[in-house]
Formats: sequence, structure tokens, C-alpha cells
Amino acid sequence: MDAQATQKTLASLRHATAELRTLSSDLKTRALEAVAALLAERQPVVLAANAEDLAALPETVAPAFRDRLTLNPARLAQMRESLKQVAALPDPVGEVVETRTLANGLKTRRERSPLGVIFMIFESRPNVAIESFSLGFKSGNAMILRGGKESMRTVGALYSVIGDALESVGVSRECFWGITDPDRALTHHLLGQNRFIDVVVPRGGEALIEHVVRTTTIPVIKNDRGLCHVYLHEDADAAMAVEIVANSKCQRPGVCNAMETLLVHESRARELLPLIHEKLCAFGVRWFCEDGALAILQGREGVVRADESSFDTEYLDFALNCRVVRSLDEALEHIERHGSRHSEAIITRSAESARKFEYGVDAAAVYWNASTRFTDGFELGLGGELGISTQKLHVRGPVGLRELTSPRWFIEGTGQVRA
Amino acid sequence: MDAQATQKTLASLRHATAELRTLSSDLKTRALEAVAALLAERQPVVLAANAEDLAALPETVAPAFRDRLTLNPARLAQMRESLKQVAALPDPVGEVVETRTLANGLKTRRERSPLGVIFMIFESRPNVAIESFSLGFKSGNAMILRGGKESMRTVGALYSVIGDALESVGVSRECFWGITDPDRALTHHLLGQNRFIDVVVPRGGEALIEHVVRTTTIPVIKNDRGLCHVYLHEDADAAMAVEIVANSKCQRPGVCNAMETLLVHESRARELLPLIHEKLCAFGVRWFCEDGALAILQGREGVVRADESSFDTEYLDFALNCRVVRSLDEALEHIERHGSRHSEAIITRSAESARKFEYGVDAAAVYWNASTRFTDGFELGLGGELGISTQKLHVRGPVGLRELTSPRWFIEGTGQVRA
Repeated sequence: MDAQATQKTLASLRHATAELRTLSSDLKTRALEAVAALLAERQPVVLAANAEDLAALPETVAPAFRDRLTLNPARLAQMRESLKQVAALPDPVGEVVETRTLANGLKTRRERSPLGVIFMIFESRPNVAIESFSLGFKSGNAMILRGGKESMRTVGALYSVIGDALESVGVSRECFWGITDPDRALTHHLLGQNRFIDVVVPRGGEALIEHVVRTTTIPVIKNDRGLCHVYLHEDADAAMAVEIVANSKCQRPGVCNAMETLLVHESRARELLPLIHEKLCAFGVRWFCEDGALAILQGREGVVRADESSFDTEYLDFALNCRVVRSLDEALEHIERHGSRHSEAIITRSAESARKFEYGVDAAAVYWNASTRFTDGFELGLGGELGISTQKLHVRGPVGLRELTSPRWFIEGTGQVRA
Repeated sequence: MDAQATQKTLASLRHATAELRTLSSDLKTRALEAVAALLAERQPVVLAANAEDLAALPETVAPAFRDRLTLNPARLAQMRESLKQVAALPDPVGEVVETRTLANGLKTRRERSPLGVIFMIFESRPNVAIESFSLGFKSGNAMILRGGKESMRTVGALYSVIGDALESVGVSRECFWGITDPDRALTHHLLGQNRFIDVVVPRGGEALIEHVVRTTTIPVIKNDRGLCHVYLHEDADAAMAVEIVANSKCQRPGVCNAMETLLVHESRARELLPLIHEKLCAFGVRWFCEDGALAILQGREGVVRADESSFDTEYLDFALNCRVVRSLDEALEHIERHGSRHSEAIITRSAESARKFEYGVDAAAVYWNASTRFTDGFELGLGGELGISTQKLHVRGPVGLRELTSPRWFIEGTGQVRA
């Protein structure tokens, strides 16, 4: 793509933001339903494109990577379902956050407005293209979508579906830009376009996020790592503790809201750690234990000594760190030092200890007697998510529709001037 | 300041965020009142420090710069008044934004929490130190304050007042860090500390903001330039148009919410432009006119032809650009091309045209029949402001107390795990 064509596309996207700001909720709903319908009709084309991408993968690629790239009728059905769900969500645009009448008679109104142009950079799963488009479009944003280079044929087919479906209901296909040029030079160029792009959302591994944050001067919503803890307080219910630790660690270990470190109060360690170890044996979990925990679990399956870096390691796997602490305060100190401000849980019967934990940890989501795995836009009732933010500016935790807008001011007067 | 001392200070600041998260509203109020009281008591010390800073200025410094740096009893009284006003504002921390009970029984609560550690970089006016501290502290944030190098003795005296006043009511003086080391290497170092600092707020000239945005990987709230327009529609009330243009341009031309460009509908240009020119003559305003406006105003005082760059120039002075447009759409196109998304105004009798303008322009604040000069935290009822944001992420327009927090999630269960 040459430089002139790029700037022309950016300008038309910018132009489309005016249309998107005032698109009726009804038309947005119909457009997303049209995408779902056309996706069903074009299923053979999409699957054929996906087959080409898969065929082009090197033999040596990891099976998990190949699986993430693979589409099939069931996964396409999920994509259609997700489109319909987003279509049915309430429209955040135009939501009035606050109104006032000032002493001078000025009437002020703060109303949610789209962020504008959002540049979404994601890795291999092609369904992220559909989900990101639907959330961005529903919230009135012009999306630039840039998927992994191995998925360009697949996402290209999806972008054609989106564009054609938009046009079929009378919405300009310039409302989004699906990139099919795998050249990284284009991505790099776009990261410098702060006149045209309002927000960048990188979603993928640490290297991607680090690269984006270092390169761009455009505001970023970071979907960074999750180094999440579960702390078992002295009065924890034993059965609940075992279930929550097992779920937080093993229900899906490769995601950011999975537990990486288990902290347990010294008064309960001898009782609870063996129970939990037994429960987790079925998953072949490796345990990295500091001395206190090691003294209890040494010799059991998968148990090794933690080293200096263990407690800062996000395994994203069937592995965990374990430490015995003398107090809730020591647990808080540990989390402050090693946590990533994502999701933290305490298991306790005491409301007072729960409150102390809630305000003592600095995390986007704090759990009392529940699994950390609930930090997710669907699970928490947002109807979807563009990612999970680990920064504090704008949004902490799941990025739903409302989080893809910000309020702006409308001030109506009768000739007021400032004294 | 050596590297070790810096990291120690950062760590103690981070530690203080836990105290700040749970500081009672009452104690915060008392602390700010104590700062105001001690500021009165220490007035001679502060003025002496300020006199030293002023004496050290080079002879050649601009009078306006010297004036901005100067403190006197009246300005100190304003600072005390501002402290008391912020003390009296409602505390945003703990405000519940949303609660839900999910189908599985989990109770969710999104509650406003401090952003954490905010690094505020500002230029010459020493009162910004007091204002920034008070807003940041009231919203539960640990502030790092870095003023202009010419003001180090003055702000140093103010920081001593703040620290002593905090201690006098039992709040740790480690709750903020007032920098008195003028070495830029320290600032540069801090811009890289994204483990310790949550948000950077540069407030000053374009060069400062550009430098910060390019240098740091920490999220930034930009207080960028304002290239604001007033558009006189075909049905504008003539007297109102004249008053609002005069106020938007001349009431205080050196600020970001002042008008830089006047757009007028062609059907009213011959009538309105001479009236406005006459009104603005008293201020010696220079007019940079494109052809249509030039045809009407040529030969009048201060009127010259606009060149290519005029409409992108923020004068911050008694100067304006003027253009005649054929329609509201042409006004919208002009603003989209040249505006900085800060504050835009339309003067019209028609609610329909006002609506079209409000949603057609992409600005933080849109005015209908009022002066652009109201884009200000005090004027809009926020009780103060840390600056005026021109980005879209997190906050658009004045940054008040609530905008120095973001909601985080508290999720309380009875043992729920994810299926």
C-alpha cells in the first residue's frame, strides 16, 4: 500500500466518524445482523480462505497456534452468535452522564460519544476481527483492524463480508478499515498518525504490547499481563478455598485472569496445601514453593523450590507459585510487590478482612470468595469486551461498549459570555 | 539526587497510595485546610523564596514571564481560597458507579478509585503547585510535582508548607513529592518509571507536551492546544454574535479556550463582519482574512490576507482568522480540517442547526449561543481543574476531581467458580 493510498484511507475513515457519531441505534443493530446473515451465506468462501492460510503455515508451527487460526462451522456459528449478542446490547452513544444548569443560565450536558478512530492490533484468532469490529461499530467508532500476518486471507474474507453487509443496509463501508497488507511498515506508519487515530488497542503477547507502547504517541488501552493471586485467610472455608484455587488456576490456565500465585495464611497452610495439591494433581500442576510452603509439600508430585523470579512469572500454564504468609498485611505487601494490578482474590469468612483486602490491593478487579476467572466482559455483564485493561487511565478491567466511548460537553446558552 | 534516593522516594510514594486510597474525606478536608492556614502563617518565608527566584531571573526575561512567576499577598490569598474551595468539594473516591447482581449470585460494584501516582509537570506559575496538589490529594492520588526550573525556591517553600501541614493533621508527608532538583535528567528518568507512575500530566507549551508524549511509555493526559472556532449561522442574532465573538477572542486571548477563527455564513458576512471589526478595534485585533472576508474588510485597521498556515495557527493573542462559508456543512468541514477538538461554538436561532453542529463537530465542548471561554473546570461547575484534556481517552475537556479517578471492580461471592 503506497503512502498516498494510506493517507486517503485514513482521511475517509476520519470522514466516516461524523457518520458514525449520529448513526441510529436501529441502523447499527440492523447492520450487525446483516453481517451475521452474510457470514452464514459466505461460509464456504471464508472457510476456503482459512484453508489457504492454514496450508501456508510452516510445518513447524505449534499445534496450539494452528488451532487458534483454524475456523470451522462451529466457530463461525459462534461468531454469528456474538454478532447478534452485540447487536442486542444497549447503545452507549448519547447516554447522558450528567446535566446541570449553571448560575448564569448555561445548560450543560455530558454525553457519551465515540472515541473516534480505534486502531486494533491483534494476533492469530480470526474471530477477534469480528468481535472487535462489532463492539467498535456499535459504540460508533471507526475501527482499523490489523490481525496476525498468518491470518490475512481469512480476515480478508471476513472484511469483505463486513463491508458488503454494511453497504446492504446503507452504511458506508468506509466505516472501518480491515488491513490485509501484512507489511509491518504499514502498522509502524499508522502508529505515528496521531492526527487521524485516537486510540490504539494492542491485544496479544507482551512483545507486541511493549512494541506498541514504545513506538506510538497515540493514547493506548493496554491489555497487559495478569499476575493474579488468591489469598487464603486464616478463616477461609476449606472446601471453598480448594474449589476457587482449582478454578482460578486450572479452568483455563492460558489466560490473563488465571491465578499464578497462591498465598496462604500460616495457620491454615498445613491443612489446606495438601488438600489443594491433591485436587490439582489431576491437572499435573507444577508448584514453585518458597520455604514455608516447601516444608509442607516437599516430595509431592510437581513440587519444586521457587527461585527469585518465580513470583514475577506469569506461567499461563498448569504451574503456580506458592507462599505461606504470616498475616493479611504480608499478603498485601506480596501482591503490591509482585502483582500486575489485574485480578486478586481473598477467601475469608470475615467481612472486615475482605474490606481490608479490597482497599489494600491496587487491582482492576478484587474478589471476595470467588474465582479470579470472572474478570471478563461477558461474565461481568458487559455483553462482550475488546480486551482487559491493566492501566488505570480510562478503564480498569474489561473494555466493554461503554468503555469505547467518553463523555463530551454540550453547553447551550442564550448569549452568555464570560465575565 | 542520586538514583538510589530516587527509587527510594518512588517506593515510598507507591507505598503511600495505599494510605491515600482509604483516607477519610474528613481528614482530607482537614489536611487541605491546614495547608491553607500554614500558607498564611508562612507567607513571609514564601515571599522571600519567591524574591530570590525573581532576583535570579536574567534581565532579558519577558515581563509576562516575570509576572507569572511573581507571588504577592493577593496571589497567596487566592491560593488559600482555592485550597478551601477544593477542600469543600465532594470526595470522588468511593463513589459507586454501578452495582449488579449476576445470575450466578455474584454481586459486582464499580467504585471510583484514585489513579495512583500522578506525575504533574508544569511551567512557571507557582500557584499550579498548590492547585495540582490539592486536586490530586483530594482525589486520593500521590502527586509528583515538577515546576519550572526558575521557580524552584518558590515551589520548594510551598512544598515545605504542604508537608508540614500534612504532618500536623497526622497524614504522612510521603503522600506527595515536590521536586526541587532542577536537573532535567531526573524528569527524564521519571518518565521511564512506568512501574511506579500511573499517569503523567504535562501542562505548558507545545514543546513540553510533545517532549513528554514522545518520551514516556506512561499514560498521559494531554493539555494540548486549543484552535477554537465560532461559527455565525445565517440566522444568528446580530448583537449576540458580536458579544460572543468579542468575548471568545478578547476576554483573555492567551488561553486555550479563546477563539482563534471566526467563520461566518455568506448571507450575513456583509452585515456582521464590519460590526465585529468595529467592536474588536478597541483591542487592536489583527485579522487574517481569506478572500471572501477580505473583500468585505479590506482596508480596515489590522486586516491582512490569510496565508496557507493562518487557519492552523493558535495565536494566543489579539489576532484571529476569518473566513466566509457558504453553509453549515462548509463550516463543519473547515473545523474538521483545522480544529483541535477543544471548544467550538455556533450562534444560531435554530435548534435544528445547533443539533447538526453539536454532533457534526468532534470537540470536547460544543457551544450553542455562548462563548468558548467557558471551557474551564470552575466555570462548568467542577470546582477546579488540573488542566483541559484534548485527547479522547479517559476525559475530554476540564480535568476535575472525578476525572482524577477511575472505577474499579469489587466482586463478592459465596464460592462461585467459572463453569
